Amino acid sequence: MKIHNFSAGPSILPQEVMEQASAAVLELDNSGLSLIEISHRSKSFISIMEEACELALRLTGLSGKGYKALFLQGGASQQFLMTAYNLLEKKAGYINTGTWSTKAMKEAELFGKVVEIASSKDQNFNYIPEGYDIPSDLDYLHLTTNNTIFGTQYKEIPDTQVPLVADMSSDVFSRKWDYSKFDLFYAGAQKNMGPAGTTLVIVKEELLGNVSRSIPSMLDYTVQIKGGSMFNTPPVFAIFTSLLTLRWIEAQGGVEAIGKKNSIKATHLYGEIDKNSKFIGFAAQKDRSEMNATFNLVDPQLAAPFDALCEAAGISGLKGHRSVGGYRASIYNALPMKSIETLVDCMQVLEKKY
Amino acid sequence: MKIHNFSAGPSILPQEVMEQASAAVLELDNSGLSLIEISHRSKSFISIMEEACELALRLTGLSGKGYKALFLQGGASQQFLMTAYNLLEKKAGYINTGTWSTKAMKEAELFGKVVEIASSKDQNFNYIPEGYDIPSDLDYLHLTTNNTIFGTQYKEIPDTQVPLVADMSSDVFSRKWDYSKFDLFYAGAQKNMGPAGTTLVIVKEELLGNVSRSIPSMLDYTVQIKGGSMFNTPPVFAIFTSLLTLRWIEAQGGVEAIGKKNSIKATHLYGEIDKNSKFIGFAAQKDRSEMNATFNLVDPQLAAPFDALCEAAGISGLKGHRSVGGYRASIYNALPMKSIETLVDCMQVLEKKY
Repeated sequence: MKIHNFSAGPSILPQEVMEQASAAVLELDNSGLSLIEISHRSKSFISIMEEACELALRLTGLSGKGYKALFLQGGASQQFLMTAYNLLEKKAGYINTGTWSTKAMKEAELFGKVVEIASSKDQNFNYIPEGYDIPSDLDYLHLTTNNTIFGTQYKEIPDTQVPLVADMSSDVFSRKWDYSKFDLFYAGAQKNMGPAGTTLVIVKEELLGNVSRSIPSMLDYTVQIKGGSMFNTPPVFAIFTSLLTLRWIEAQGGVEAIGKKNSIKATHLYGEIDKNSKFIGFAAQKDRSEMNATFNLVDPQLAAPFDALCEAAGISGLKGHRSVGGYRASIYNALPMKSIETLVDCMQVLEKKY
Repeated sequence: MKIHNFSAGPSILPQEVMEQASAAVLELDNSGLSLIEISHRSKSFISIMEEACELALRLTGLSGKGYKALFLQGGASQQFLMTAYNLLEKKAGYINTGTWSTKAMKEAELFGKVVEIASSKDQNFNYIPEGYDIPSDLDYLHLTTNNTIFGTQYKEIPDTQVPLVADMSSDVFSRKWDYSKFDLFYAGAQKNMGPAGTTLVIVKEELLGNVSRSIPSMLDYTVQIKGGSMFNTPPVFAIFTSLLTLRWIEAQGGVEAIGKKNSIKATHLYGEIDKNSKFIGFAAQKDRSEMNATFNLVDPQLAAPFDALCEAAGISGLKGHRSVGGYRASIYNALPMKSIETLVDCMQVLEKKY
């Protein structure tokens, strides 16, 4: 049976990407060697790394604009501390939109003063705050563009006079927007970019070198840029598979075309959530994520029959995060419309039967 | 043509491991889902992680002895700073046996006083120092058990009253020895354990919690232990493939049996280096590594014909590191005797022809 994979991450990747990655583990480009047994200093791998970096910049419209792309290790959680280690001299502002923003703030507090500029905690993070003032003396303002757990997403990028830093782990490469408004953004691969094990960082070079502390080499963006993401051995498989996914995104027409498809998918699902009397959405309508749709049953008693319907239809990974409960449909780039339709069918069957 | 892969790392892994890893990227255990698209919180992946940790402890004889095994990200280079971040309160001692020891010292200096207890730099690191005093007031003593670049390896573990910390990136699981003499050791996967992208850390729990500084969560061993190596999303593919390799090591008879095979392979190659008039070994005989054999041509003019012979025989990855020059044959666990024999044949042909 075809599985409809709604997992929040690690999550579905394009089928052709998985086939190509699997083949490369056996043999890379008729070399007689596996992708995972070649030197990262070989011509083959250097070419993979360079293409991945170039493609990441091209897809975000940042080629030739003073940015560098890095493929590092440690996930967004390591970026929580690296951003602060590299950028926080005195005071940084954070917009708190959920679990991950909160964690980012906690790590930054080890390095300087952290100011919570705005928060949606009062409503269990079901919206994106608006109408706040951004002090002009911040080293940077940090935000989380998409909140995987709560299902909210920024639609507009805040205007700010201070450098803008963002965790885009769950929506990078999912839509067209002005990436050049950000001075640094990062994303764990395991949503729209590749398998877990690498983290994309795109940073404007002029942002770096302005803190007075000494930074350990591995955590220093400048060192990583100088090493071309190969200060030490990079996570070869995760980077190669990310490259395959980036190529697939470009072949789909880039982030603008992907974004249109994502909007159609999200609109179809949210449409059903809104009109189906058995379900209620969690996030504020204006801030709904096109990556993670969070929703609940109006009557919790219907959980057993709904879960059974989903299971029979091959739906996997729909359980909501414990902070929200209910359901979460993660509908990343690679999730086909067919999976959305299958879920909507289950919701409609539930409504008709009960 | 069959390639004989002497790459120093990422390096050869057992063929059956690459086949199983490749298959899992398409589908894990008839689940209908790829290894790289399932949640790391799924039963399937938790079971993979637990088995990998258990097996790492069992193979090193450390089960039930107060140690924890972790699979982290960032390679040995990240461990250079993590060991110091977690353990260095006042003063640590380092034995400097080459490039990697030197880098480890550099990172540690950000966190406290670093004392070079002994060094073999005077002879371009071609030996392992002996006959030094170890101060009793060190927070720990750090050493590099095998020096990939220079081809030296500890045969005995130094006796010390202070905690012993080791970088075992290039020889963990390659031989039987008393791992319980170490309080913490770490190893980037990409030699004997798996693909690049994860790092094994085995640490005695009682060693932790003794520094006064605050440690960022991702860099805190205690946090990582509490999270079962899943404080954040782990590098799923690298850990799964490491588990496959650890299973293969156990099926070979464990580290004792593997170590015997490695000794036979190394003896055969060093035997040829010593008796062949065209070659000269780099490392001191008593300290020769059974993982990386470094050697040079007596007459550099023979490089072209020797390289041609090697290429014709399907030998790959034999070029020495720029710090040493000449050749380096990395002869890790998975390298078959047939590859050693092929190399020895090329050396013998060179001697006969010139």
